[in-house]
Amino acid sequence: MAPSQKQPPAAPAQTHRVPSLVKYEDLLSRTRDFSIIESTLREGEQFSNAFFDTETKIAIAKALDDFGVEYIELTSPVASEQSLADCKAICQLGLKAKILTHVRCHMDDAKIAVETGVDGLDLVIGTSSLLREFSHGKDMAYIEKQAVEVINFVKSKGLEVRFSSEDSFRSDLVDLLSLYRVVDKAGVDRVGIADTVGCADPRQVYDLVRTLRGVVSCDIECHFHNDTGCAIANAYAALEAGATHIDTSVLGIGERNGITPLGGLCARMYTADREYVMGKYKLAKLRDIENLVAENVQIQVPFNNYITGYCAFTHKAGIHAKAILNNPSTYEILKPEDFGMTRYVSIGHRLTGWNAVKNRMVQLGLGLTDAEVKQVTAQIKEMADIRPLNIEEVDTLLRKFHASAEAERIRLSPSDASLHARSSNDNEGTLTAPSPTATDAVNAEKSRLPAPADVSAALA
Amino acid sequence: MAPSQKQPPAAPAQTHRVPSLVKYEDLLSRTRDFSIIESTLREGEQFSNAFFDTETKIAIAKALDDFGVEYIELTSPVASEQSLADCKAICQLGLKAKILTHVRCHMDDAKIAVETGVDGLDLVIGTSSLLREFSHGKDMAYIEKQAVEVINFVKSKGLEVRFSSEDSFRSDLVDLLSLYRVVDKAGVDRVGIADTVGCADPRQVYDLVRTLRGVVSCDIECHFHNDTGCAIANAYAALEAGATHIDTSVLGIGERNGITPLGGLCARMYTADREYVMGKYKLAKLRDIENLVAENVQIQVPFNNYITGYCAFTHKAGIHAKAILNNPSTYEILKPEDFGMTRYVSIGHRLTGWNAVKNRMVQLGLGLTDAEVKQVTAQIKEMADIRPLNIEEVDTLLRKFHASAEAERIRLSPSDASLHARSSNDNEGTLTAPSPTATDAVNAEKSRLPAPADVSAALA
Repeated sequence: MAPSQKQPPAAPAQTHRVPSLVKYEDLLSRTRDFSIIESTLREGEQFSNAFFDTETKIAIAKALDDFGVEYIELTSPVASEQSLADCKAICQLGLKAKILTHVRCHMDDAKIAVETGVDGLDLVIGTSSLLREFSHGKDMAYIEKQAVEVINFVKSKGLEVRFSSEDSFRSDLVDLLSLYRVVDKAGVDRVGIADTVGCADPRQVYDLVRTLRGVVSCDIECHFHNDTGCAIANAYAALEAGATHIDTSVLGIGERNGITPLGGLCARMYTADREYVMGKYKLAKLRDIENLVAENVQIQVPFNNYITGYCAFTHKAGIHAKAILNNPSTYEILKPEDFGMTRYVSIGHRLTGWNAVKNRMVQLGLGLTDAEVKQVTAQIKEMADIRPLNIEEVDTLLRKFHASAEAERIRLSPSDASLHARSSNDNEGTLTAPSPTATDAVNAEKSRLPAPADVSAALA
Repeated sequence: MAPSQKQPPAAPAQTHRVPSLVKYEDLLSRTRDFSIIESTLREGEQFSNAFFDTETKIAIAKALDDFGVEYIELTSPVASEQSLADCKAICQLGLKAKILTHVRCHMDDAKIAVETGVDGLDLVIGTSSLLREFSHGKDMAYIEKQAVEVINFVKSKGLEVRFSSEDSFRSDLVDLLSLYRVVDKAGVDRVGIADTVGCADPRQVYDLVRTLRGVVSCDIECHFHNDTGCAIANAYAALEAGATHIDTSVLGIGERNGITPLGGLCARMYTADREYVMGKYKLAKLRDIENLVAENVQIQVPFNNYITGYCAFTHKAGIHAKAILNNPSTYEILKPEDFGMTRYVSIGHRLTGWNAVKNRMVQLGLGLTDAEVKQVTAQIKEMADIRPLNIEEVDTLLRKFHASAEAERIRLSPSDASLHARSSNDNEGTLTAPSPTATDAVNAEKSRLPAPADVSAALA
């Protein structure tokens, strides 16, 4: 076994938590007490680009274990000879995470799976009328009998066992509850709800899980596909309704466009209880794990990926940048440093604002009055109407403006210069200038500064 | 004005609709009667990479109008001189969609905006204690007074007007409801709820919109950021609770990692009411619009993008492929052809199944018995354990296997060959062979076929 890796104590509670979540505690909710079943090595292998060789599977399993997921789910050992060998190899790594394998609810498959060294089996069978008609062709009585037989067999081997339907949200509710009550009584550790086609919405999920919670006493695992964009929200709704385990994959890879992504679920659950999530998972490792998987399946991490997307902590509009610089909680529900990320305030564009520009002046050690900052901001906007400026270009402009303003001050009144110029050590909080609108700044700019013929000329 | 573009009549209802949605109608729900406020040219311009010149803005506006969105929202004309000029230019295009511009709730901004030719103004002000303290510094009484003044002014110009808070889910509920009741009485067309930081979850959204629905008589617009993965689900929950307008952007681009994506919302709403969504929007144009925007902001469409991601309709695992080939509704809630997309069943990998392979044999006009298809399937799995096969490699293997099997049949019993071989015209539905497990197939394969030393040699 790998040594137990304790996390450092959680930081004190933040003031940016959603207010309604701190007012009262819902006793049914498991948003602060759940486990992740990480299925990159099962559902993820069903992603069209995925081909994981043994070495890659081991690297991914180790990374997920180090991150802190409670379970790692593997492809059925029945899928191919190599799948069987890899399953055995991962079981021998001595990971902290429990190792599961996902097999059809069939004795032939279960007999092979229990010999691999896994901690448990995730059994699955389709229960919707569509799957019963067009996939396996079995009726509910047959499914029930087979489920109990396989569950009894797996339990007799001392392993954990889950029983899940496929396409649960298009299955008959009464059939589903009847079946789950039977398998619960048979001693299953978890029942599973799966939105196999990605059709469910959060209120349906809440209702179904809430109903099921009243019928079975075992744990409840949920698996959500993302075809219609609800995979993360559905996972959250399921936990609110009393589900205990959520399936994820790195970057959400899986059949079609995949399932609840590990990073996205972490973002969501962190919002509900930052300390709990930070205490369980090494969030700063997310980016490395995502890069490892992305490289292996030859995809780019999406530009808008949760947490690690390159713009996830970039602030652009002037009104946002101003407030962020005063207090990041104004426009950030996630603290980038908790995920090993950094915040970026973009200023070289036409939506910029003078507060963000002033902040950059201070960073550069350039002192200007607020009126002057507004002038140079108007100049940036005017130039950025032609094309956006990168940070080096903005800095060049700020330095030129500052030098010119200093020279002007010295020319007008050498002895008074020190009263107007602001050094980089000044406390921004002491500024009491009124907040003119952006038009004021534009108008001030137009009346005092010649417009640059083009951006390059102005920066030359 | 552009000519009115009627959509062809909607196709008849499909059997794959989510059952619970057809059983009863929720009278409060607007999931079948909503409008999209498309904000790529406002929120989208706040995406870190976005710089839209006039020509690009016009191309995007025309594409969105052709797609069928009800509103197009533009950056404030106060942001820069070019923003003002572009706003006027787009208003003169004569689009069917109403043109809105998004401005701070301030008379200076409103006075400029009403002169641009827009159909309406979207007014915004921060109401959370955080924004009141760290952004504009105004109290609720001041906000209320200013709101009514600006609303009266905009209405006096005969324009549509929306009033929205920012960061609504971290605002005091009573403050928010009081303010919205006042602006409703002042004659505002819509009030807006904005999850500016992306912290809200669907149940919070439902509760807040449901409560607000009982307080105001005007329309309700909602704007959801996606930091914690709920932007689509929140939009859906808002419509269920009685919201009437949803903000979107193409690919979800906006501040940080953006808002509810247009394509993702379409996928979600299509699931709720396919005919309604297909009747309003030209869904097959989604891909072109996304490519237009992606190219302009220099991003790749994410691999897992809703509907248009390259694997959104790719089926891989054997059990999925089998059912999909019998009836696509088994594993698809979206019909790819409704979006101008095509389905792909991947077979050259170790998770493949004999039903999918048989389907490919039929496509190639190669007749084999089921037992033979299972043999060649086992061979594919064994080779794909080394590396995945592309479709050409699979086809080569199938043709070689078929030729070899035919030769064997002729050798053993020339006169009986026609009884065993199946032509491509045979009806697959007549097959009555039992469904052996994958292990059966693997074992059959191992006992009869020499394992290929490596994939390339076998395909040579």
